[in-house]
Amino acid sequence: MTATAPVARVFSSDNAAGASPEIVEAVVRAASGQAMPYGADDSTASVRRRLSDVFEREVDVLPVSTGSAANALSLAASTPPWGSVLCHRDSHINNDECGAPEFYTAGAKLVPLGGEDAKIDPGELRVAARHKAGDVHSVEPSVVSVTQATETGAVYTLDEIHTIGSIAREAGLRLHMDGARFAGAVASLGCAPADLTWRAGVDLLSLGATKNGTMTADAIVVFDRSLTAELAFRAKRAGQLASKMRFHAAQLDAYLTDGLWLRNATHAGAMAARLREGLKAVPEVALLGAADANIVFCRLPQWVTEGLLADGYAFYHDRWEPGVVRFVTSFATTPQDVDHLLRAVGRHAA
Amino acid sequence: MTATAPVARVFSSDNAAGASPEIVEAVVRAASGQAMPYGADDSTASVRRRLSDVFEREVDVLPVSTGSAANALSLAASTPPWGSVLCHRDSHINNDECGAPEFYTAGAKLVPLGGEDAKIDPGELRVAARHKAGDVHSVEPSVVSVTQATETGAVYTLDEIHTIGSIAREAGLRLHMDGARFAGAVASLGCAPADLTWRAGVDLLSLGATKNGTMTADAIVVFDRSLTAELAFRAKRAGQLASKMRFHAAQLDAYLTDGLWLRNATHAGAMAARLREGLKAVPEVALLGAADANIVFCRLPQWVTEGLLADGYAFYHDRWEPGVVRFVTSFATTPQDVDHLLRAVGRHAA
Amino acid sequence: MTATAPVARVFSSDNAAGASPEIVEAVVRAASGQAMPYGADDSTASVRRRLSDVFEREVDVLPVSTGSAANALSLAASTPPWGSVLCHRDSHINNDECGAPEFYTAGAKLVPLGGEDAKIDPGELRVAARHKAGDVHSVEPSVVSVTQATETGAVYTLDEIHTIGSIAREAGLRLHMDGARFAGAVASLGCAPADLTWRAGVDLLSLGATKNGTMTADAIVVFDRSLTAELAFRAKRAGQLASKMRFHAAQLDAYLTDGLWLRNATHAGAMAARLREGLKAVPEVALLGAADANIVFCRLPQWVTEGLLADGYAFYHDRWEPGVVRFVTSFATTPQDVDHLLRAVGRHAA
Amino acid sequence: MTATAPVARVFSSDNAAGASPEIVEAVVRAASGQAMPYGADDSTASVRRRLSDVFEREVDVLPVSTGSAANALSLAASTPPWGSVLCHRDSHINNDECGAPEFYTAGAKLVPLGGEDAKIDPGELRVAARHKAGDVHSVEPSVVSVTQATETGAVYTLDEIHTIGSIAREAGLRLHMDGARFAGAVASLGCAPADLTWRAGVDLLSLGATKNGTMTADAIVVFDRSLTAELAFRAKRAGQLASKMRFHAAQLDAYLTDGLWLRNATHAGAMAARLREGLKAVPEVALLGAADANIVFCRLPQWVTEGLLADGYAFYHDRWEPGVVRFVTSFATTPQDVDHLLRAVGRHAA
Repeated sequence: MTATAPVARVFSSDNAAGASPEIVEAVVRAASGQAMPYGADDSTASVRRRLSDVFEREVDVLPVSTGSAANALSLAASTPPWGSVLCHRDSHINNDECGAPEFYTAGAKLVPLGGEDAKIDPGELRVAARHKAGDVHSVEPSVVSVTQATETGAVYTLDEIHTIGSIAREAGLRLHMDGARFAGAVASLGCAPADLTWRAGVDLLSLGATKNGTMTADAIVVFDRSLTAELAFRAKRAGQLASKMRFHAAQLDAYLTDGLWLRNATHAGAMAARLREGLKAVPEVALLGAADANIVFCRLPQWVTEGLLADGYAFYHDRWEPGVVRFVTSFATTPQDVDHLLRAVGRHAA
Repeated sequence: MTATAPVARVFSSDNAAGASPEIVEAVVRAASGQAMPYGADDSTASVRRRLSDVFEREVDVLPVSTGSAANALSLAASTPPWGSVLCHRDSHINNDECGAPEFYTAGAKLVPLGGEDAKIDPGELRVAARHKAGDVHSVEPSVVSVTQATETGAVYTLDEIHTIGSIAREAGLRLHMDGARFAGAVASLGCAPADLTWRAGVDLLSLGATKNGTMTADAIVVFDRSLTAELAFRAKRAGQLASKMRFHAAQLDAYLTDGLWLRNATHAGAMAARLREGLKAVPEVALLGAADANIVFCRLPQWVTEGLLADGYAFYHDRWEPGVVRFVTSFATTPQDVDHLLRAVGRHAA
Repeated sequence: MTATAPVARVFSSDNAAGASPEIVEAVVRAASGQAMPYGADDSTASVRRRLSDVFEREVDVLPVSTGSAANALSLAASTPPWGSVLCHRDSHINNDECGAPEFYTAGAKLVPLGGEDAKIDPGELRVAARHKAGDVHSVEPSVVSVTQATETGAVYTLDEIHTIGSIAREAGLRLHMDGARFAGAVASLGCAPADLTWRAGVDLLSLGATKNGTMTADAIVVFDRSLTAELAFRAKRAGQLASKMRFHAAQLDAYLTDGLWLRNATHAGAMAARLREGLKAVPEVALLGAADANIVFCRLPQWVTEGLLADGYAFYHDRWEPGVVRFVTSFATTPQDVDHLLRAVGRHAA
Repeated sequence: MTATAPVARVFSSDNAAGASPEIVEAVVRAASGQAMPYGADDSTASVRRRLSDVFEREVDVLPVSTGSAANALSLAASTPPWGSVLCHRDSHINNDECGAPEFYTAGAKLVPLGGEDAKIDPGELRVAARHKAGDVHSVEPSVVSVTQATETGAVYTLDEIHTIGSIAREAGLRLHMDGARFAGAVASLGCAPADLTWRAGVDLLSLGATKNGTMTADAIVVFDRSLTAELAFRAKRAGQLASKMRFHAAQLDAYLTDGLWLRNATHAGAMAARLREGLKAVPEVALLGAADANIVFCRLPQWVTEGLLADGYAFYHDRWEPGVVRFVTSFATTPQDVDHLLRAVGRHAA
């Protein structure tokens, strides 16, 4: 990213960004010499040590190639086929993975719950967690899955996560966290990762990294290590055990080195805040939703949306309701990118 | 790989190698700037064009993260759950993927057939292809899967592949090729890739690249394009649709540029030939199996095996039968690596 | 059932009844002599002829042992694993089969829709039928499933079914009918079974018979006969191809002889009407829901419910909302049974 | 079966027979009055008590509608999806259930083993039971399934079953018995059912009854009762939980009353012995295989086979190898039926 880099116009998702330079360098280093395959390499071991440090306890780690694989494998290890997954109705696992959880679990059922800002409503969860438990005519409540940060960019507070965790624990359910934007949540809350996960009862975390700086590497962080052996078989069987695992591991290792993961997320959040701040000044724009992570929802007049599209900007619009627009920033978004977008909005709104 | 690179001592598999410099460079280039996700990027389009050139016809392409995923997805698109996959009893899909085909196909059955050098015996195939067809009490023969080059490094001749193709076609079965070492087979035969695949009736090819120079990218090449839409849904659902697809595509694009894929395979084959040639000169060593691709099977005295292991060499031994050893070379193996190994064998055998 | 038969006190479901005498006699007849297994017997052929008569066209028939099997097999033949089943949120397939559809379909997704009286709202269906069609990130709308009569005893009118059928057809979706109480719906509407099914676009019908007089036999009636071969494999694989099929077929054959199926359903409906009429006269009782088939919903004071339970009556209560009670009549319910219940209600209410 | 009953000419399988009169009467009795559904009826409780008596310990029981369902459910409760089922290559689960085990287990792998008379060879089992255990690249040995009596009518001795049981236990595998002809095996051995099952380590027994006198009822007998809850969910989900369970239970209850099950099997075995004895006297006929249960294998001259077929006899021939014929007797076979067949053989052979 030099000063002459072209302005970034894709705000549709943080997956439009490339990769952090530190991660690129790690991959280049990994490319020479020999290494043992299937995770028996040094980088994979290092990733496990670094994540054990980050989470202040021994964890197991399975690097995987996508967040959908991380979610689906985690859920498959958390519910029998006749179980149910309690999740928000707007969750990625429910809407955007083409039934990956149903495939990996051999047909478990996702039970969609309501709640503001795509956060599960504890009252609804309390009822669903006991719904027909033990009744063979109905699927058995088995696991709760929360997304942190949520699909709308909101962040569960520590209290909220602990409440969810208590409900799950009391009902004997497992707890999975889809952390596609976990770093953003930690950055936003400024809390210890341990407090946000296993100390609140999280058994398995889908640790998103691709949206925050890696190329092709996400991971499952296993807090309930009694599930590790099963996950290893499931991952192999799913075609998720890379032979040259070192290339996934090198990405994750660099991601976890010197706090790069948090730095990237903090930057993405700051860019979203800058965008939000700038949009506030435009009277034709109404900001919507939470202001927690790197996602900005707002309502734009139609002519502004059309003007931005004509300028070459890419973003989701009119998908939730007419006039509602979503902008997503990333680790690679620059202040210039944001300001350029803001100027375009101002120009079309005027 | 400079002159001072350490000697490579891992001959257990070609997946112990790193990545080709051209591919590393392509990944570095792909890491800056924005790109549309999920395969809507320019590199993915380029890969499709290059493979259409290589195969002399329009093909569709799905980049995936492992060969097991390529195989399992291909088979799932080729058989109903109540179908059978006719394959060699020594095939990777039958033995080394932890039931990935059974998982992806929702429980189809692999029917293991015999044959020399891990090549399917046409006579056995002819019988199996009709076995209880149409009988609801039995699984329905649905697809043949051949490995080219085979698990022992042998290469089906063009005639052999066409015979298999005829049997499949006449019985109304699909034909899948596990091309984990496809480049090695093409290099060995010196034939047109089209002759070895769709002109022989191959519907779907698992195009291995990881063992031959890429980091994390294999692909499904779709000749029967009526299967493409189904494969796209299946891949997404399997967690195999990478958001930053450009990073897989960039690897494959470089792999297919200026014949790198064939060059790498030719080199690996030459290194195996050099090793074979050198071993011939050692009276205590008996060469075994075909001499087609980059795999060398031989029988070593136990003290030689033990000596090599003590030297830090890694390779499979005593897995097939006592005394039988397998060495695998790769695109990254140097003549020095081979000679070093040969000297060690000679020293221990003496 | 002689005059001295004990009063029937189980109104929880029509599955508490025994079997029609005509059906018992048919089973006794089937028990002697030899017959070819797996549906190659004469009774199975006769069932197919009788159903072809009933539906005024050639149909195929698969006798199965439960309604859940009929539903799950039908849905599995109607959607790929990455598809969705559009159904009412109160439907049996969604709530009461422990995920049988998800199991048989290898993980398709049930999309629950709203609507009065457990009938699918056409407006919601119209939206859901196109929702993200063709988008690999989402499950693909594939089949609509209606329950006729519905889970609350309401009956879709001919017009309503034809509207659902049009929406399905226009969106390219299949249409399945869960006819656990199909006979009751036909009896209530007084229409031709053909008009209620294939003429409205129904591809597959789960023909319930167990609740209406048979012992252990339901059936799938196949209107889209291109699905028959697939269904046969699926049924065998699911353990639903009975070796002594004649025993299922004999039940269905008698069920379809001389209009027994309709007579039984008409009787059950009349008993429900008698009950409804009687309850109207009790001021403490409020009737609820549709008055179409053999299910009566009402609101009872708590002391009446408790009194009935103390009398030995069995029925569902406080399951939908507090105070709401469901009574189900059957082919075997007698006027005396109804009057006895009414007297008990009157006594406790007074 | 009166003296004027037509001669039975179907010797293809014991599933061509009807039902025992005692069982017919039980079904007739079950048809009147009300009963609680889904196994909460008195007959189901009685079946459990009777089987606990037969097996000299508390057992759990799941009545199911077919032997394939009993097998597939049992195996699904005994292996994870990434496990393997060690069975004989000629076993019914491997060849004749259209992949039901693969379907119910969500894709486990059947590993076919050899052995005389369709009995698993202990030496082969010992190797397979440890094969790549714990290696994520391969399916995990999880359960052994034996058929008693075997598919060829042979009967494992007590010693043989105990040997299999020891191998399974030592390797940490479960043990399932496909007892489609369990009664025949007990009758042949004259042993305690407990010795043949749980005392030898059997965890789950598919108790065949349909081939031996019932109409539509088989059962799973659960010795390892830690599996019962899981089996109940799986059975419901598979469409195997009958609403009017009393009709299955009444059959099984009568089957287990006053030793009917053993009487029937003893009779079928005696009829096979009578047939075998008679065939010995025909020089053109060569008897083959074991002489344990109700199956007779022999080699017939082609003209004899053709003559019998022309007479209207039904039996399997030329399925194993040319000239080999299989006759199966049943509880309903009469001495007259056997003698009639013997006369026909003699006539054609002469």
